[in-house]
Amino acid sequence: MVPFDVWRELAAKTPSKIVLVVVDGLGGLPDASGRTELEAAHTPNLDALAARSSLGATVGVAAGISPGSGPGHLALFGYDPIRYVVGRGALSALGVGFDLGPDDVALRMNFATLDEAGNVIDRRAGRIPTETNRRLVEKLRTIRLPSAQVFVETEREYRAVLVLRGEGLSDRVTDTDPQRTGVPPLPVRPETPEAQRTADLLNQFVAKARELLRGEHPANGVLLRGAAKRPHLPTFGELYRLTPAAIAVYPMYRGLARLVGMEVLQTGESMADEVQTLRQHWDRFDFFFVHFKPADSAGEDGDFARKARVLEEIDRLVPEVLALRPDVFALGGDHATPSTYRSHSWHPVPFLLHSPWVLPEGTPGFSERAAVRGVLGRFPAIEIMGLLLAHAQKLTRYGA
Amino acid sequence: MVPFDVWRELAAKTPSKIVLVVVDGLGGLPDASGRTELEAAHTPNLDALAARSSLGATVGVAAGISPGSGPGHLALFGYDPIRYVVGRGALSALGVGFDLGPDDVALRMNFATLDEAGNVIDRRAGRIPTETNRRLVEKLRTIRLPSAQVFVETEREYRAVLVLRGEGLSDRVTDTDPQRTGVPPLPVRPETPEAQRTADLLNQFVAKARELLRGEHPANGVLLRGAAKRPHLPTFGELYRLTPAAIAVYPMYRGLARLVGMEVLQTGESMADEVQTLRQHWDRFDFFFVHFKPADSAGEDGDFARKARVLEEIDRLVPEVLALRPDVFALGGDHATPSTYRSHSWHPVPFLLHSPWVLPEGTPGFSERAAVRGVLGRFPAIEIMGLLLAHAQKLTRYGA
Repeated sequence: MVPFDVWRELAAKTPSKIVLVVVDGLGGLPDASGRTELEAAHTPNLDALAARSSLGATVGVAAGISPGSGPGHLALFGYDPIRYVVGRGALSALGVGFDLGPDDVALRMNFATLDEAGNVIDRRAGRIPTETNRRLVEKLRTIRLPSAQVFVETEREYRAVLVLRGEGLSDRVTDTDPQRTGVPPLPVRPETPEAQRTADLLNQFVAKARELLRGEHPANGVLLRGAAKRPHLPTFGELYRLTPAAIAVYPMYRGLARLVGMEVLQTGESMADEVQTLRQHWDRFDFFFVHFKPADSAGEDGDFARKARVLEEIDRLVPEVLALRPDVFALGGDHATPSTYRSHSWHPVPFLLHSPWVLPEGTPGFSERAAVRGVLGRFPAIEIMGLLLAHAQKLTRYGA
Repeated sequence: MVPFDVWRELAAKTPSKIVLVVVDGLGGLPDASGRTELEAAHTPNLDALAARSSLGATVGVAAGISPGSGPGHLALFGYDPIRYVVGRGALSALGVGFDLGPDDVALRMNFATLDEAGNVIDRRAGRIPTETNRRLVEKLRTIRLPSAQVFVETEREYRAVLVLRGEGLSDRVTDTDPQRTGVPPLPVRPETPEAQRTADLLNQFVAKARELLRGEHPANGVLLRGAAKRPHLPTFGELYRLTPAAIAVYPMYRGLARLVGMEVLQTGESMADEVQTLRQHWDRFDFFFVHFKPADSAGEDGDFARKARVLEEIDRLVPEVLALRPDVFALGGDHATPSTYRSHSWHPVPFLLHSPWVLPEGTPGFSERAAVRGVLGRFPAIEIMGLLLAHAQKLTRYGA
């Protein structure tokens, strides 16, 4: 692991431009045909580009560990995902597009069903529709607490996000979710003496919510868990001397990008829209994080053919990105999502690095198996940022 | 290195079963024919299995470092072999099958020859036969010390093991072995104030041994070295939520397995016996460590042909193991023992990982050269446990 101070010392502001395309869930496994999604997909542009690029396979967190989106992206951005944790509450807040301040404490909130004795009988309130959630959230937004602002945001179905904003708040508090039914919600307890006031405020919130929801069914109570502040991360500007922009459709990735100081650009719903946004803002930034979600969604749905089609669509967009003449073009993923596995997995993720300064593979073909045997070999995702900066000639020599 | 707490957080109890076959001394080097032992051996089962598995080459401790059995196995079991050391005394105790308690202090003991002035004239007592060693050990077992139990165990020839058991003992004491002749044995000295009593007890033991052995020749004295307690390691149960069993013929490997909380199964003398034991106990455990010793012994003897024959015998046993339908089958080694080198070596060791969730090599062949170019590449042996757990679907996602 390179200490941050080394990047601060070596990184220089230059006009060169880097594009990092993150294909969420990029890696896959073979289906019955013996080919992975990437091998089955017709990707002539990536295949040809591979011959003029270096390939590798990135390990997001560690061997065998399947990264969530938070740790997966922190690693891509150069932050140790074991040391820097985006807690559940903070990730949920980012996921609904809430701009989490440095002193805010965010929690996941479930609507739940309580019986007359106050015991939890359904931790998910019968999975109420998102519409009901929105109506109940409006009610909860009327709650006022002494010396702390209250924000409540709908996630979906029975899930919402609670954020407290104020001075001296702490995330070292316990959950109210008992993780089982037939028992009452737990009181919030402080894990440190400094967290006492936060625990008191949260218990007040829970009591007021119970009052406001008394006439409702099935969502007549709330459960809180995963209290978290946003992690303190040095920004891309401070660390790498970059002026970075993020292009992502989903709020969580926009939020993760904001955490590291990227300017989040407005964009449309499709991957083509995202490339259009890249083109529009090309002059203003020297680093672009472009996040493509649909391959991961297809993998999680177990839809091999759809994942392959998404990869083909990305392949068709690659020449448009290259036409902008980035000094460094990289394409990788935050984790694998094999369609056969239907979930994030631990497998190393294919990574392609293109610049005039790579040692080229020489042979065409972009696949999991080509990647693990590529010029870059298997390597930690946290090393990507150094490679991008170096190939963009933004790093001075280390030592004389 | 993944902190233990991450495994504790991610590991889940599931019914899936893992078999880790450790072929002691698995890696080799080519002889004059240009082929390694593994390349020369006829191993059709492993070769075919490789096509449906991922291969890699594991580094036990670090590049260039030849691991002993202790660090070699700690790494396989997921414990940093630089941080966790099984001291010489503890390893010797494990090697004779002594069940070392958490507060015991174990030392290596040599029988030695002293002259009339008390100077060491032979540090190995003319390599007395093991039979003599056993007779002398019986004498030494009559020694009684205040508030500490004394255990003496024959290793072989001039080597034995001394264990003190009692409260407040310390292994921070110096050796009596002067490492040269013509000088008297050194007194045991404490390295910390807390070790004073242990040093006193050991000096009493040495004096009483000298009395008891006065009439003997050539073994009329003892030398002590390598005082060590057993290392404190979290168990497989606590760390990985596994219920592990060990099948090994040699006491040292049985002892190492016990250190990490494995249940050590009674087995016979041959590798076929070990597989029979695996079959008998299949239902009771979810992790099996199966240790095959003979390849290492053949390598240490410099017997290329015998090592190849041992590998062929192992190849014939592989289908029997696979017939049990483990969810994950892995075969690797704790270190290489090339027959040409006649010793443990530092070379990365071939590793084969088979499960429905591997990215398969696609081509048959299991060898050192196939392994280093395999899908898993060259990687630290300490990463094996994470891979085994992941491929057995025993790890939840890291971060949301």
